Amino acid sequence: MSKFWSPLVSDLKPYVPGEQPKMRRLVKLNTNENPYGPSLRVLEAIRQQLDDGLRLYPDPESEHLREVIGRYYGVSSEQVFVGNGSDEVLAHIFQGLLKQDKPILFPDITYSFYPVYCSLYGVESRTVALNDAFEINPEDYLVPNGGIIFPNPNAPTGRYLALGEVERMIAGNPDTVVVVDEAYVDFGGETAISLVDQYPNLLVTQTLSKARSLAGLRVGLAVGHRDLVEALNRVKNSFNSYPLDRLAQAGAAAAFEDEAWFDQSRKRVMAERDRVTKAMTGMGFEVLPSTANFIFCQHRTVTGEDLAARLRERGIIVRHFNKPRIDNFLRITIGTAGQNDELLRALGELTG
Amino acid sequence: MSKFWSPLVSDLKPYVPGEQPKMRRLVKLNTNENPYGPSLRVLEAIRQQLDDGLRLYPDPESEHLREVIGRYYGVSSEQVFVGNGSDEVLAHIFQGLLKQDKPILFPDITYSFYPVYCSLYGVESRTVALNDAFEINPEDYLVPNGGIIFPNPNAPTGRYLALGEVERMIAGNPDTVVVVDEAYVDFGGETAISLVDQYPNLLVTQTLSKARSLAGLRVGLAVGHRDLVEALNRVKNSFNSYPLDRLAQAGAAAAFEDEAWFDQSRKRVMAERDRVTKAMTGMGFEVLPSTANFIFCQHRTVTGEDLAARLRERGIIVRHFNKPRIDNFLRITIGTAGQNDELLRALGELTG
Repeated sequence: MSKFWSPLVSDLKPYVPGEQPKMRRLVKLNTNENPYGPSLRVLEAIRQQLDDGLRLYPDPESEHLREVIGRYYGVSSEQVFVGNGSDEVLAHIFQGLLKQDKPILFPDITYSFYPVYCSLYGVESRTVALNDAFEINPEDYLVPNGGIIFPNPNAPTGRYLALGEVERMIAGNPDTVVVVDEAYVDFGGETAISLVDQYPNLLVTQTLSKARSLAGLRVGLAVGHRDLVEALNRVKNSFNSYPLDRLAQAGAAAAFEDEAWFDQSRKRVMAERDRVTKAMTGMGFEVLPSTANFIFCQHRTVTGEDLAARLRERGIIVRHFNKPRIDNFLRITIGTAGQNDELLRALGELTG
Repeated sequence: MSKFWSPLVSDLKPYVPGEQPKMRRLVKLNTNENPYGPSLRVLEAIRQQLDDGLRLYPDPESEHLREVIGRYYGVSSEQVFVGNGSDEVLAHIFQGLLKQDKPILFPDITYSFYPVYCSLYGVESRTVALNDAFEINPEDYLVPNGGIIFPNPNAPTGRYLALGEVERMIAGNPDTVVVVDEAYVDFGGETAISLVDQYPNLLVTQTLSKARSLAGLRVGLAVGHRDLVEALNRVKNSFNSYPLDRLAQAGAAAAFEDEAWFDQSRKRVMAERDRVTKAMTGMGFEVLPSTANFIFCQHRTVTGEDLAARLRERGIIVRHFNKPRIDNFLRITIGTAGQNDELLRALGELTG
């Protein structure tokens, strides 16, 4: 606390990201990164940019990248917004679309950055409880609100809401913006981008950090009606004209152009997810059905806190949230087959 | 305008950056990029990162980069903040430090992003007129205020305020934050970072886009007292945990480690600046004394608007601001010797 701070600063409770340990040789299953490296075409596209051109500012509008994404999803590039990770995109959404007179709604158990954005921008919010199976019930969101945001599949539960149910929420709230945060949708879900031409109040966000294996490059996107994208552009151009550097623009475009790599990578993750789920269920774990690249689980007898600590002693890092309703659960990222074997071996010993 | 926008969005008048034309073969002297490409050590450092590691999130704290910068300037890494271009760093400063009860002060002719940040965050401001020679007078800033920000050298004038004068402003405002925006300081100015240990109200920002020739990589920084940096960290961690990707962190650190390249590059720019200034003065231009990598000038008889349009016809792009007091001026970036020759030849024809 300092007399020099803006009054809002002392009230901020910043987001705490999962640890990025500096040690090598850890089995790092705590921040939902893809266990497989990115497409070689991404690396090559970035390499092509490594020359004197770096002295020049990047395209402030990321036009080529937005065109590639638009083509990929069958929308116009004017319906596409890109930013420095989906976290930056979400921040602009909270400031530019979700700051309204009425409180916005999001689930009680969800991405813990949402309440942080609310305090950064003075957005009022109300949380809506998931049901006992940790599912979102669309009915609960058909009440007066200033906007709605939820991840699909939800984090950290991994639970997926079928597209028809998502559509009920969008159609039932024609006067407020519904943001579907699809960070994990490519691991078995169906994107709501197919609905953006029908619903002017729908905005869908995605990231290249998960299924496209580019957490280290920081690229996220939003797709929706031009008017919604225009609000984000106004905020972005009042904040930082050039959020995406030359390398990120080139690499991200290449990522959307390598479908073969993409399909193979996410299918491998999904196959491993099924194998890990089955094995852990056999050890006495309750594993929530997951459509993400992680699983959310608790054990019949050993506490989540205890398991996290004892896995850590063995060099395996998973995420434990010390929060109401979920403090016995662990969120475990799906790793490579070898990492998953190590995990299962350790869990077998710790719960056996 | 859309019913879905947050009320603030319709009032925003976003910053308009200098054009980034997509045509090749232009003499592009409009956005103050460095005419020489970056250090080869930067390119090599980035190349080293082009592997499977891109699947992992970057270090959210950019610790290695902050250590390198701290060592370079003889301060602790805890006094260093980094962001996605100095524009992002400035945005966090406006929100986290300059949003106060009293209006902040900045020059009437200055970086035109400052008033944009003010409207984005609801920061009250008052402009202070430069004198007739377009100089900042420190006396004018010794009045009640909520904070002070100015570039040194100033943009788009290029005029430099001696460090002793800067110190008078800082010492004379012990209760408010004074931000010295040193985007162009390396072309002949002296940094105020040497004063940060003496003045807890001083924050200095810099960018790697100009003297370090990395506009395409998007890295900026701030140096000041730990308390000021802590405010920026709180805002950053409530906005985007990972603003700098892996490639930017590695490239930026390498840029600070190649002093030989840095010295040579900025000295070449300064020598060309002197040559261009002399030649243009001989053609009837008034050229303000510049300590930046650009000059700010007007001609005795031909208007700035006219000159800009006619240079453009010849494939030479410079910046003209249609604003009170400076609408007859041009801001011209110093290019390579060859580009400057082309500029001088064209200006000779247009004014001869």
